[in-house]
Amino acid sequence: MHPYRTHTCAALTQSNVGEAVRLSGWVHRVRDHGGVLFIDLRDHYGMTQVLCDPDSPVFAEVEKVRSEWCIRIDGTVKARDASLVNPKIPTGAIEVYIRDLEVLGRAAELPLMVFGDQEYPEETRLRYRYLDLRREAMQRNMTLRSDVVASMRRRMWDSGFREYQTPIITASSPEGARDFLVPSRLHPGKFYALPQAPQLFKQLIMVSGFDRYFQIAPCFRDEDPRADRSPTDFYQLDMEMSFVTQQDVFDTISPVIAGVFEEFGGGKTVDAPETWPQIPYAEAALKYGTDKPDLRNPIEMQVVSAHFAGSGFAIFAKLLEQEGTEVRAIPAPTGGSRKFCDRMNAWAQKEGLPGMGYIFWREGNEGAGPLAKNIGPERTEAIRQQLGLGVGDAAFFLGGKPASFERIAGRARDVIGAELGLVDENRFAFAWIVDFPIYEKDEETGEIDFEHNPFSMPQGGMAALEGDPLAVRGFQYDLACNGYELVSGAIRNHVPEIMFKAFEIAGYPREEVEKRFSGLSTAFQYGAPPHGGCAAGIDRIVMLLAEEENIREVIMFPMTQRAEDLMMGAPSLPTNEQLRELRLRVVREEE
Amino acid sequence: MHPYRTHTCAALTQSNVGEAVRLSGWVHRVRDHGGVLFIDLRDHYGMTQVLCDPDSPVFAEVEKVRSEWCIRIDGTVKARDASLVNPKIPTGAIEVYIRDLEVLGRAAELPLMVFGDQEYPEETRLRYRYLDLRREAMQRNMTLRSDVVASMRRRMWDSGFREYQTPIITASSPEGARDFLVPSRLHPGKFYALPQAPQLFKQLIMVSGFDRYFQIAPCFRDEDPRADRSPTDFYQLDMEMSFVTQQDVFDTISPVIAGVFEEFGGGKTVDAPETWPQIPYAEAALKYGTDKPDLRNPIEMQVVSAHFAGSGFAIFAKLLEQEGTEVRAIPAPTGGSRKFCDRMNAWAQKEGLPGMGYIFWREGNEGAGPLAKNIGPERTEAIRQQLGLGVGDAAFFLGGKPASFERIAGRARDVIGAELGLVDENRFAFAWIVDFPIYEKDEETGEIDFEHNPFSMPQGGMAALEGDPLAVRGFQYDLACNGYELVSGAIRNHVPEIMFKAFEIAGYPREEVEKRFSGLSTAFQYGAPPHGGCAAGIDRIVMLLAEEENIREVIMFPMTQRAEDLMMGAPSLPTNEQLRELRLRVVREEE
Repeated sequence: MHPYRTHTCAALTQSNVGEAVRLSGWVHRVRDHGGVLFIDLRDHYGMTQVLCDPDSPVFAEVEKVRSEWCIRIDGTVKARDASLVNPKIPTGAIEVYIRDLEVLGRAAELPLMVFGDQEYPEETRLRYRYLDLRREAMQRNMTLRSDVVASMRRRMWDSGFREYQTPIITASSPEGARDFLVPSRLHPGKFYALPQAPQLFKQLIMVSGFDRYFQIAPCFRDEDPRADRSPTDFYQLDMEMSFVTQQDVFDTISPVIAGVFEEFGGGKTVDAPETWPQIPYAEAALKYGTDKPDLRNPIEMQVVSAHFAGSGFAIFAKLLEQEGTEVRAIPAPTGGSRKFCDRMNAWAQKEGLPGMGYIFWREGNEGAGPLAKNIGPERTEAIRQQLGLGVGDAAFFLGGKPASFERIAGRARDVIGAELGLVDENRFAFAWIVDFPIYEKDEETGEIDFEHNPFSMPQGGMAALEGDPLAVRGFQYDLACNGYELVSGAIRNHVPEIMFKAFEIAGYPREEVEKRFSGLSTAFQYGAPPHGGCAAGIDRIVMLLAEEENIREVIMFPMTQRAEDLMMGAPSLPTNEQLRELRLRVVREEE
Repeated sequence: MHPYRTHTCAALTQSNVGEAVRLSGWVHRVRDHGGVLFIDLRDHYGMTQVLCDPDSPVFAEVEKVRSEWCIRIDGTVKARDASLVNPKIPTGAIEVYIRDLEVLGRAAELPLMVFGDQEYPEETRLRYRYLDLRREAMQRNMTLRSDVVASMRRRMWDSGFREYQTPIITASSPEGARDFLVPSRLHPGKFYALPQAPQLFKQLIMVSGFDRYFQIAPCFRDEDPRADRSPTDFYQLDMEMSFVTQQDVFDTISPVIAGVFEEFGGGKTVDAPETWPQIPYAEAALKYGTDKPDLRNPIEMQVVSAHFAGSGFAIFAKLLEQEGTEVRAIPAPTGGSRKFCDRMNAWAQKEGLPGMGYIFWREGNEGAGPLAKNIGPERTEAIRQQLGLGVGDAAFFLGGKPASFERIAGRARDVIGAELGLVDENRFAFAWIVDFPIYEKDEETGEIDFEHNPFSMPQGGMAALEGDPLAVRGFQYDLACNGYELVSGAIRNHVPEIMFKAFEIAGYPREEVEKRFSGLSTAFQYGAPPHGGCAAGIDRIVMLLAEEENIREVIMFPMTQRAEDLMMGAPSLPTNEQLRELRLRVVREEE
């Protein structure tokens, strides 16, 4: 007989009745029923009820066993009484009578119970992560993550991609966040960096002629604490293709993402990739107030400036006299009650706005509320018709320069949609956001800088760069799902002259580009193919699928928000010998 | 028509004749045959011959095209003359007449030719790696590596394992090599370390109840330059299982490794896992002079001390009077000529030995050579019989304390086997090396330290630790293949008391163990399961399969031996701002 087990704790069924078996696992729970000890014995695969009556030769030993001890038992499988069968678990028809016991690993007093649903402070959970991970929800999340990554890999292989590993100890990558540095011992005073993403390397793989690359890639960013992010690293499904258009990238990655959501989405509706809209960035900003809209929410904002210009609502009328201002409406179907409108207005005030004007429509499509009074029935009716609203509906209004209220308008749209129950919780709704601007203007300095990724190909190529920089759109795109950005990518700017010109507009002379990105800018001199790709955030996809709000619920051994590993004790003080070898000195605060 | 290609450069065959097609790729070679330009157009998938005669509207443009330009052509597929068909490539039956040309990426003068077999200095190859990688051998090596890793993954999944990612920014792991450190910005003066291996984490995953873990894991070691190693990082197929014996680990990983060698071994014989011998460490040292024997070589060394003790060969006879000395024979079947024996003797002298005594057997099994003369015919015959040699064979002899000559004896075995053509080059021969000693004694200080991995379970458990430490063997094993160590692993010491005792013997008091390995030693207090596993070196496996001698031939973007990335310019000087944020100062050499 195997020294540890003949079966896992999920294997025994009616068909094993009468067999002598051996099981190993953890004591999930011990119960004493009239002198008979019942143990739920748990392993990774499941749970088996084992029991010991006072006749057993090891009763005295079994009596000592406590929760989370790791034990091995020998016993005989018996059928449960029909009334005691538990149809919810595979082993629910049997129980095992203990004949022998071996304690494999004792447990000290537990700082955290595995059994039950008790909540523990995050610090306790992370310090004793190995206990936390034994809990059913965590076992489920981790296996889900593993299965999702495997499914992504399989789908990429099936799409003709190969996985290639790129360096982790390397030079800084230009993603704009802060690098983690790694001091070099062989070259004292010099440092490596951990890659913020494999972007430069995947582009070099294309220049090397590999055609279709992907990687489940760790990415490293030295981030300040934020609840929804790992402060050190995260994983991407990173991919790149040569000789492709933006549409080719969409056609390739969309079925992969949709397939994963169908496979692991727990039966929720997944919009078919053919139906995913391609929404220009400017349109997304207007309609949804964000470049990662939640399309489960049917609300689309509209510009209604014309109805307020020169109207009796002095605040908007006056505001619209300034250049670049607009009034936008957030339609709120079924939100047509003063109570609801006031609640939203209060929400807006809590968010720091002076308030949020509204109109709601009563019997006979009569517009109500202070705004309606101020602008009069004709304009009110025109607004209603434009927005396609009717009795029982409402609309909210925000005005000013769009940049000043777009984000809050987007959040108001979310809140209104949620409050009114307009959001289909049972659906994954996707949209490609396209046509991102290449440049943005710093409002204070007036300087032009890259809005997003400096390596994207401008639409219209060199000719476009000779016009107004702020009008240039890139072949650059994001995939939004349920309000999250899941994927981001671009067709790259592979033509050296266009690349140097694009950087020049953003204030980087050719020499600086050649210095900062010498690897890539040199490589492009040797027959670079057109190429493009994208990267999908794995942690976030798993969070969505696991219905978790905190990234640490889907990472095996996460850092705290303060970037500490409480279990392993990292970071820690180096030895003097280590510092000496690296020729480094730590500067005290006051120096 | 797609803007870049209707087909890849490997797709067109006889069946496409007459079609108008579009291809993109690199100009592999241009030839001018009587005014007609022939271009071998290459992409990742293959090569297509395209050609342009002076009648083509783009002849003048095609004339400008040079090697490694990336181009797009439109043209018509025509069948080649029967005499010009090249059956070696899929597209060998056709050629494409160019009608239109677009230059996608020009190439400057090439520092390295992709076409042909010219050798270049490694510095050139690594600096222009994207050109080097376009060469056929490198494309093959990289796709091989990718396919091997994918096959390993599939095989592990099929064996019931899940892949879980462990942290890359973490605390030091106790593998005994030098850590790469990562300074913390949020905790100035403290450092993270990159993991030398995920060993602690995989053990914690077992304590967390996950049963079967694997990972294609990057491992980081700050190594001094060595030709056959990456100076920064390498990849392992890392795995761990709970509730298993050593034999269970063998039974699980052996078919995975054998399967990979069968799949990618190019038709070489792969020993069936059931036949892989399990050779105790001590036996391997004796028979093969190494713990990673090449079993394709049939030579097995033997102890022949008895035949030399008190013999007429004074050097050995005297030597054997000292305690702990031995004389060992290296049989050399078919090596029975003075010429060969003298050559091996010369080899030994070049290696720093005074020489290597030998006997060879002539007609009538007559032993010849100086040694035979000294010990006389009876002893010579006894040696022959022990070694099972005969006419035309030879044997070489080394004596002393085994530790002093074991390694050179092992190398002599390799050289003799190779010189005599005894090694079956067409075979992958595997052996598990088992029963490694847990401890070793420092010859100078006399102190006991761990021989290998301190986390291995001693055979015999606590009882064994109460005897002679140097007699304790571990459940610790390596897999050798053709003279390389491919896999290393152990059943872990999961019992806190046995672990603390094992460390105590090596001079580490309990408090220090609790401090240095606090994560694991705390975890073991909470119901640790018995567990074990191993790790397989991926770079080395791919090297063996690709028949490469240099690890840099199987890594996409390797460092130089001096740990520099010449293409990306790493490591490099940090900015003052970066150092300030990390509160670090670089100490000048003279300080």
